[in-house]
Parts: sequence; structure tokens; C-alpha cells
Amino acid sequence: MAASAAAVLVRYCLLLLCAAAAAAVAQEVVVPPPHDEESDTVLQSSSSSSNYCLSWRLGAETNNVRGWWTVPAQCCGYIQAYMAGSGQYQRDVDLIVDQIMGHASNVAAGSSSSSDDDGMDAWVLDVDDTCLSNMLYYKTRRSYGCLPYEPLSFRAWASKARSPAIPAVLGLFNYLRDAGFKVFLVTGRDEEALGDATRLNLLRQGFVGYHRLILRTASYRGQSGVVYKSEMRRQVMEEGYRIWGNVGDQWSDLLGHSLGNRTFKLPNPMYFVP
Amino acid sequence: MAASAAAVLVRYCLLLLCAAAAAAVAQEVVVPPPHDEESDTVLQSSSSSSNYCLSWRLGAETNNVRGWWTVPAQCCGYIQAYMAGSGQYQRDVDLIVDQIMGHASNVAAGSSSSSDDDGMDAWVLDVDDTCLSNMLYYKTRRSYGCLPYEPLSFRAWASKARSPAIPAVLGLFNYLRDAGFKVFLVTGRDEEALGDATRLNLLRQGFVGYHRLILRTASYRGQSGVVYKSEMRRQVMEEGYRIWGNVGDQWSDLLGHSLGNRTFKLPNPMYFVP
Repeated sequence: MAASAAAVLVRYCLLLLCAAAAAAVAQEVVVPPPHDEESDTVLQSSSSSSNYCLSWRLGAETNNVRGWWTVPAQCCGYIQAYMAGSGQYQRDVDLIVDQIMGHASNVAAGSSSSSDDDGMDAWVLDVDDTCLSNMLYYKTRRSYGCLPYEPLSFRAWASKARSPAIPAVLGLFNYLRDAGFKVFLVTGRDEEALGDATRLNLLRQGFVGYHRLILRTASYRGQSGVVYKSEMRRQVMEEGYRIWGNVGDQWSDLLGHSLGNRTFKLPNPMYFVP
Repeated sequence: MAASAAAVLVRYCLLLLCAAAAAAVAQEVVVPPPHDEESDTVLQSSSSSSNYCLSWRLGAETNNVRGWWTVPAQCCGYIQAYMAGSGQYQRDVDLIVDQIMGHASNVAAGSSSSSDDDGMDAWVLDVDDTCLSNMLYYKTRRSYGCLPYEPLSFRAWASKARSPAIPAVLGLFNYLRDAGFKVFLVTGRDEEALGDATRLNLLRQGFVGYHRLILRTASYRGQSGVVYKSEMRRQVMEEGYRIWGNVGDQWSDLLGHSLGNRTFKLPNPMYFVP
């Protein structure tokens, strides 16, 4: 019964390969898009499907459900309703950003009373579906996560530099910058392919005055989000920065090492980044 | 702006003290109990209060909302409906236990094919609202979390040794034991005050064959859940056990160090243990 960690890792890799194969097949299949009608009913109804999807969403957001490739088929309408129809996604983001602001203002108040401002107080924010919303892409091209991740079409979308800001997070960003925190934007986007577009998109949306945008360089390609982002934060901390908050929509933004003083998980039931 | 960690800690302690004071006052105030009617409507309605409470519950379950002392007043009916009226709590538990079973069976399958079964594969389960449900106490004495934690009445309840099993978790427990895992039950309950009652309660409810029940001894009194439970797991791991899964209803069961291979968060919107 003493399975080695290596054996479990191999099994996990096999599962990932199977998922990738299934996803490749799935892209050949026409998946019915979620319906377009006003969808409070879908989100709030007490049908067994909605009850299951409410449980599934909680399971995904709490990192109990992992490694999923698409939204479960029976939850396509539910997730559309959650993201776009009912306003619940927006409410969830707003409530969590309120919590973040509370933490940030506590830290700022504590530090403003001290005289040793050395300019090394920092926050880390993710970019995709944290600062910038890809909901329009996921609506039009991925049926709100019912079709699996597709790197080429996502790159085409991101290259347009037209992802809108998530308003509450832009407000948080402005607050952090104005309070004197150094804001590091840490993204898994590829530096070479998407660096210019990402800088332009952030500028267009008002994310101005961040301390550094960290994109994935060639030497980190292929690494998982957890490994890559932990390493980026470690380097920031080794420069002497104190990371007071770390905000992302994926658990891979918030696990690993060098996490900072506190982490915050924004909702995103459309995709899972390992 | 360079706030020291100590300064933030002091501020946090002050907040906790304020919360404790507020709670003491709150106990003098008559809090209206949540209504008793069948409550699918409350849980699923699209009223602004229910929408807020759905966000609050997500925030609490994802550990974004921390340090709360009671359920927000406007969510008392909603949380009652969630826990008891609608069956959604039960469904959430069942879905997460399905995920746990998937992980456990993967580990068991991987390990059964190896020949080096040394009897050191282990799981850690919390007791309160993981193995045993305190929902009846929280219903009758704490208005499903709308009244703050009250140690004396909780001790009186736990002393009766009448907390029912959470059925899905009992099934998980039996599976783990029968698959050859050593199951460690790790609880913050006080050994001296509640050791006998806890053993009796577990026995009555069918939790038979666990490897060890770890209760809080005098030297760990007053420690936070995170510190105490991390230390208990560290000692287990230092004996050579490999912790493959770690299951609890509180984030303080699942944070800190010596976490094990994977953690699982069961739902509990009725109270927060730091």
C-alpha cells in the first residue's frame, strides 16, 4: 500500500493526457451553446440539475474539484446564468474585493503609523480574469467553459488587447497604487507572444502605475502555474519586497510557496489552470 | 509604509478582542430565530438578500471571508434553508466526498500494485462537522450560527455523545479503513473534558477501527487550530506516516504545515475556527 509519490504523479500525468485527448475529440463535436434568455431562473431554480451545479461550483471554487477540463455538460446553462444572466458572478467578485480592501486598508493603516516607509510593501495581482475579463471570449468562443481551453484562439483574442477591466479589481488596483503599495502583475501569458498586447490592454483599461508586469519568459514555458508563479513571487521577495496580498482567480495563483501575507480567490467557474 | 508583521498581528488581536466583546453583548440581545417553514424558497429566491448570502457563503467557504463571529444577520434564514431546509448542504457534502473517494481510490489503486505495503499510508479526518454533525446543537441553541460560539453550552452538548454521523463521511471512513489506510482523527476537543464522550460518540455512530484519536491535551490549550493541528500532523508524519488526504470543515484544519498530499474542505457556514 505504500504508493510512492512518483507513482501517483505518473497516474496524474496519464489522467491529464486522457483529458487532453478527450478534449481534442470534444472540439470536433458540436456542443450546444447555452440558451440566451434571461437566466435568473436557471441559476435560482430548484431543479436537480441546478442543485448539482451549485454544488459543483462550490466544489470547484474551494479547490475540492480539480483538474476539470470543461464545465459539466448539465451545468452549461447554469454557468452562463451565473456569469452573465443573473449578476451573481459580479456580486461574488464585489464581495470578495470588499474583503481585499478591508485587508489592504488594515495593512496601510498599520504601516502609515510607522515611520520606516522603505517602499517595499507590495501586492501581487494575476491578470486574466483578475484584472482583465475574458468573459466575452468565453461567451462567444468557449460557451462559458463548456468547450475546453484552446490556446490558439485564446492567443488571437488576447492579441486584440480588448479584454475589459473587471471594475471592482480596477478600483482595488487604484487604491493599492495610491496607498503606496508596489503592485506586481504576475501572469502566465507568454512574454514574446503577448507582452506588447498585454501592456496595451492594461493601459487601455486604466491599469496605470503598476510597479512591474511579469510575463512568462522562454525559460519558464511548460511549467505549471503553481511552480512558475511561486518562483516569480520568490524572486520578488528575494528583492526585499513584502507581499501583503496575493489575488487570483485560480488556485494555482494561490498555492505553492512564497504566497505572501494573505491570499484571495476570485471566482471563475469557466476554466481550471493547474 | 513598512508595517512590521508584528504590528499587523497586534491589530488582528485587537480585532479579535473587539469581536469577542461584541459577541458578549450579542448574547444579551434576543436574536430572532430563523423561520421554520420549508425553505427552498429562501435559498433559491432571487431577492437581494439571498443573492448577498449566496456570495457571503462562497466567500466564507473559499476562505476569503475570515474571522467572522456569527452569520450576518440578514443571512439567518438563508443559512437555515441551506443547512436544513433545501438539502443543499447535504448535496455539497456528498459531491465533495465523491471527490475525496476518487482521490482515495487512486491512491489505493496505485499502492496496491506495489509490493512495499509498510502500513504507513494514512489519512487525517477532523471530528466536529466532519465525522460528527453538530447541526442539531446549532439549530436548537445557536440559530444555525446566528448566535456566536458559546463554549459552555457546546461542551454540554458534546458531553452527551449524541452527535450523529455525517453519513457520507462515515462511508468514506469505512472505505479508508477497509482499504488499509491508517485513519487519524484529529480534533481540537479537549482531551480531559471531552475525551471519553468523544470516544463514546464515535463508537455509537460506527466510527470503529480508526488508528488513533488525537485530542487536545493541556499543553496545547489556547493554541489556534492552525498551529495545534499542524503540530499534530507533524508528529504523525515524524513517526513515518504518509498523509494522503486531510479532510476538515474549517480552513484551520487545512492550512499551516505538514498538510499531507491533498486537502479537502467540507462546507460549514455556521461557525469559523481560527
